[in-house]
Amino acid sequence: MENNFLNIINTRRSVRKFTNETISETDICEILEAGMNAPSAGNEQAWQFIVMTDKSVMKEYSKLNQNVGYLKNASAAILVCGDTKLEKNIGYHFHDCCAATENILLAIHAKGMGGVWGAVFLNAIDDIRELLNLPSNLNPVSVIPFGHFEGKTHDVKSRYDKQKVHWNKF
Amino acid sequence: MENNFLNIINTRRSVRKFTNETISETDICEILEAGMNAPSAGNEQAWQFIVMTDKSVMKEYSKLNQNVGYLKNASAAILVCGDTKLEKNIGYHFHDCCAATENILLAIHAKGMGGVWGAVFLNAIDDIRELLNLPSNLNPVSVIPFGHFEGKTHDVKSRYDKQKVHWNKF
Repeated sequence: MENNFLNIINTRRSVRKFTNETISETDICEILEAGMNAPSAGNEQAWQFIVMTDKSVMKEYSKLNQNVGYLKNASAAILVCGDTKLEKNIGYHFHDCCAATENILLAIHAKGMGGVWGAVFLNAIDDIRELLNLPSNLNPVSVIPFGHFEGKTHDVKSRYDKQKVHWNKF
Repeated sequence: MENNFLNIINTRRSVRKFTNETISETDICEILEAGMNAPSAGNEQAWQFIVMTDKSVMKEYSKLNQNVGYLKNASAAILVCGDTKLEKNIGYHFHDCCAATENILLAIHAKGMGGVWGAVFLNAIDDIRELLNLPSNLNPVSVIPFGHFEGKTHDVKSRYDKQKVHWNKF
């Protein structure tokens, strides 16, 4: 089981091209569950998840967050937001949302689908807030377009690099 | 396999108390491999990993990074650092190191051990640099003390919270 688990971690790769197949609500909720079981500072879970499945919303979102223009072709997308109202360890929602994002990507991959970690560029945030009705206490950290894809991901060579490991000092 | 995988993600919990058992270099390298297979901005992998196994180094580290004072009792610890010399997408090493940290925690858990995501407080960084011989291009983002622990982790209730899921708008 351990080896299977590590193999899934080590073979996850970014996927940006998707089929038209839809994703069940059960699958989406299990993917979100993985996200919410990420660690967070003081276990405060200061996050909120906006799930985009409505094609018109996704199309609009793609225009605003241009580095993920392909989001409109995904089956769904999750915007991971820190919630500063729930946060006690100021600033740490950023770490927490990144941990949740990685769990979400792994769960997508474990389900045989693919997704990608999209950055939310600062200059797009005001427009994204308006589109998705986000209050000022929600801080978008990442967006994950995902879905089924055709064929296999191409590169499964491990990225382990011995030269980046330093024992007891650099 | 998918269910096992999600179960491992969903049952990971922070562990701060450890037995004296040592960890093999193979296990440590496999844990690091999971970290290095995290996604990174533009796949630049702008990170370096300092592995602490020397008890005298760990004892000194514990004095500096006081929020992880228990690190001295762990079998090993990994300091995850962004490397600004390798970074092209400025500032994104922070996301990347968080993704690597989460993969490392999951690999530790998959191996039946436990660890915790330790914050590196800004006021400790200069002293940590000196202790571990870190050049100025290395930016410590997180530290993960880990090891074997006695018994089971206590809380395995899923943290899924329906109220944090918002469909197509907040």
